[in-house]
Amino acid sequence: MARATAGRRRGGGRAGAAARRGDAALAQMPWSIPVNIDRPIEPLSPEGVEAIHDGAMRILEEIGIVFLNPEALEIFKEAGCRVEGDLVRMDREFVMEMVGKAPDSFDITPRNPERRIPIGGNHILFGNVSSPPNYWDLELNKKVTGTQEQCRNLLKLTQYFNCIHFAGGYPVEPVDIHASVRHLDVLYDKLTLTDKVMHAYSLGKERVEDVMEMVRIAGGLSHEEFESRPHMYTNINSTSPLKHDFPMIDGCLRLVRKGQAVVVTPFTLAGAMAPVTMSGAVAQSLAESLCAIALFQYVRPGTPCAIGTFTSNVDMKSGAPAFGTPEYTRATQMTGQMARYYGLPMRSSGVCAANVPDGQAMWETSNSLWAAVQSGTNMVYHAAGWLEGGLIASPEKFIMDCEVLQQIQRYLQPQICATGPEEIALDAIREVGNDGHFFGLKHTQDRYTDAFYQPFLSDWRNYEAWEAAGAVWTPERAHKIYKDILAEFEAPPMDDAIREELGDFVARRKAEGGAPTDF
Amino acid sequence: MARATAGRRRGGGRAGAAARRGDAALAQMPWSIPVNIDRPIEPLSPEGVEAIHDGAMRILEEIGIVFLNPEALEIFKEAGCRVEGDLVRMDREFVMEMVGKAPDSFDITPRNPERRIPIGGNHILFGNVSSPPNYWDLELNKKVTGTQEQCRNLLKLTQYFNCIHFAGGYPVEPVDIHASVRHLDVLYDKLTLTDKVMHAYSLGKERVEDVMEMVRIAGGLSHEEFESRPHMYTNINSTSPLKHDFPMIDGCLRLVRKGQAVVVTPFTLAGAMAPVTMSGAVAQSLAESLCAIALFQYVRPGTPCAIGTFTSNVDMKSGAPAFGTPEYTRATQMTGQMARYYGLPMRSSGVCAANVPDGQAMWETSNSLWAAVQSGTNMVYHAAGWLEGGLIASPEKFIMDCEVLQQIQRYLQPQICATGPEEIALDAIREVGNDGHFFGLKHTQDRYTDAFYQPFLSDWRNYEAWEAAGAVWTPERAHKIYKDILAEFEAPPMDDAIREELGDFVARRKAEGGAPTDF
Repeated sequence: MARATAGRRRGGGRAGAAARRGDAALAQMPWSIPVNIDRPIEPLSPEGVEAIHDGAMRILEEIGIVFLNPEALEIFKEAGCRVEGDLVRMDREFVMEMVGKAPDSFDITPRNPERRIPIGGNHILFGNVSSPPNYWDLELNKKVTGTQEQCRNLLKLTQYFNCIHFAGGYPVEPVDIHASVRHLDVLYDKLTLTDKVMHAYSLGKERVEDVMEMVRIAGGLSHEEFESRPHMYTNINSTSPLKHDFPMIDGCLRLVRKGQAVVVTPFTLAGAMAPVTMSGAVAQSLAESLCAIALFQYVRPGTPCAIGTFTSNVDMKSGAPAFGTPEYTRATQMTGQMARYYGLPMRSSGVCAANVPDGQAMWETSNSLWAAVQSGTNMVYHAAGWLEGGLIASPEKFIMDCEVLQQIQRYLQPQICATGPEEIALDAIREVGNDGHFFGLKHTQDRYTDAFYQPFLSDWRNYEAWEAAGAVWTPERAHKIYKDILAEFEAPPMDDAIREELGDFVARRKAEGGAPTDF
Repeated sequence: MARATAGRRRGGGRAGAAARRGDAALAQMPWSIPVNIDRPIEPLSPEGVEAIHDGAMRILEEIGIVFLNPEALEIFKEAGCRVEGDLVRMDREFVMEMVGKAPDSFDITPRNPERRIPIGGNHILFGNVSSPPNYWDLELNKKVTGTQEQCRNLLKLTQYFNCIHFAGGYPVEPVDIHASVRHLDVLYDKLTLTDKVMHAYSLGKERVEDVMEMVRIAGGLSHEEFESRPHMYTNINSTSPLKHDFPMIDGCLRLVRKGQAVVVTPFTLAGAMAPVTMSGAVAQSLAESLCAIALFQYVRPGTPCAIGTFTSNVDMKSGAPAFGTPEYTRATQMTGQMARYYGLPMRSSGVCAANVPDGQAMWETSNSLWAAVQSGTNMVYHAAGWLEGGLIASPEKFIMDCEVLQQIQRYLQPQICATGPEEIALDAIREVGNDGHFFGLKHTQDRYTDAFYQPFLSDWRNYEAWEAAGAVWTPERAHKIYKDILAEFEAPPMDDAIREELGDFVARRKAEGGAPTDF
């Protein structure tokens, strides 16, 4: 079978050379684009798929969605939808015709073309945690408000790990930067510290336009080149139930008109802003995302869009959101099945409710990451670093998650299950016979270094050796790796002229006052 | 859809009543027999299945398996196999004919018939950790040799948790009991502290015969009743590569002749006692298990057998076994695919290499438990309590694993994905409309208490509430639950006469000297 990787390359710069010499913070897997070779888990019967589709369509036809965006309302009117005030009702024929114009896969090309990512098909890609207002690490051992320094450090992890394919929103909200200019400073940090695919928050026209301009500058692109294909994306949430606010739609329309990609991710917590039943919550989520995607396709047919899911359940005792639950897993699988029905790429997440990077954090995150694999998810948001339902970013959790992500990438390599004569290995088995072992065998020696996944964080020593080495639990090991990575981190190369142009742009926009803060 | 449970009942005794009142150590899911409703993940093409089958058959035909058991050698001779010394070669026609006689599912009925378990089909059942020589808990915070008290405490957990369906081997080896009488004391503890399906070690005729007799006595059965259907099982390992030792086969033959169940689980670590390639390790494992199953079917056609897998890889650096790895997961899936090809029930495990119940322990264990679900495993051995590659039993890990097992049980309940009009909930969505929330809705209130899985160990509070409650990490919470369970534990009911008969049997057999210790 073909190797399940594409765009493979050796790590660049001195850090890459160090990793090859073996004196780097860790030896990691090379950059690759994983291909999900498993058949998705599909919990819905064909009748179940039709029932959820019919539910989503009837929501759009009979109940309608509020769009708090006058421009969107005008467009829907022009398209023949029923608009009353800010409520829009649309027929399923319109929705399906528009959704049918969306591509089932597309590429996004960041400033380093070698970091181009394909969204859709059977690719599965991982992004860093996005948007927590708080930060926790083992040294602090408390929850604190996010800062630019922490944000930069987490961006360094985003760049460092080859298993992180794209940058999400801010890996922690740097609350020490004034909101009017925060997007300028963080995007400067993001674009200089990483060369991976960029995200823009849809929080007002200035932020969106500034980020697009900075991504264009960083890529050394003309306006025409920038608009000729996707170089970045935004991700929006609806205001569930059944509402889209002004800035999210506005931001998307701005990206769509410049040929950039859009992900629409309703946050439908079953029992809170969606029905307590999971298929109802999924149907509502689909209605909320499909109507926005229909709008974008009407504005620019063929515009790259992905359908996101953030359907989970609440804690029955407190009403607090829960993540990585059985209900979350099934909702993600159901949404994946529906995304394939609509022919749209799909986004889900790596999530947990745990407050610290302990056992609970890892079983909840493992569940959500397996749900991503099982659902045929293409973009896994928040795949590294998320704690407390998204309210905390943690570098230890980031490192731990990357260990799990690498294992998933390895799991998806078809050569593990190759069954040619060399793999069945009858001659080797014959050679060893009924005594002895396979350690010294040529068949073993020839394959030994690549035969198995090699972890960078898991400690596989026996208890005595582990104890002699200090009896270090997983989060402490992760903390040390975090510090080692920061110590050796080198930013990816960028032309001085481009760096200067970016800096000038930031300075000018700051002088102009940045963006309004009344979002 | 039908509810995915069978044999459901309320917890018995005062502890059960306490749980219903809400003042028990924890509120857990009721006893049920989970049905795996997912389609298995099948990494092998039809050609891959044939290649592994052909490999396994050629191992048996051309290389042969050593049986260090004269009785087995005589039986193979009688069956027309080629026997040279202790090496047995057998044609695939013989193997497939014999394996074809094995049932694809069977029941085992312990002393409490309400704890009867079906092995095979799409049932997935969980057993406790088995056979670690050492024990670790958070209070000790060190690895110590197992004792009878620790063994009893872990047996209490085995009984307490409804998500544990059968008892495996000793949950920790009580090294403080002399080996000659250990089986008598532990089986007395097991049979009085639990009413679930029992296991016997195949370590010499006395141990096997004693355990069978004690299970018969505990069930209040005549010899004829005992032999009329499976009441217990043994699990054996081969001595890989390609060898079966005397006592394992001897024990199986004794169980088989009394109508009891047998699980054959080769321990084929790729790169050590099996080829470094996973399909080769799987082929060898299948050869080792199928030849034993063929023997048992020849002796007693239709005898209940399951095929086990313990194929994993070693650490490339140290040669130490690794568990829950990508290679482990794929090997388990491949073996599941082959078990269905042969029409045999399948056993796998819940395993990790971690030394303490931290994040690594849970991602490795989660991986192996998801592998069990994905492979269509019927019996999940070691599903709760395993650390350090099986060398340590831990009560905290036991509690943490049971939280994960409950979530898997809930995940397998098809009602999560029900799509009737009540679940799509269009009326509820219409009622809430574009503002408000679903909390107070009748549709929500009617379903709220049962709508979502409720954990007993996960802490879903926000950071501040969690911190105010002491900032307790998962293993510490598990430790408290462990102590609470021990404090409230009540043994399942047993007739005084039976208890006395069991005690008399143990006393008599001890007086006779127990079992030889030269195994």
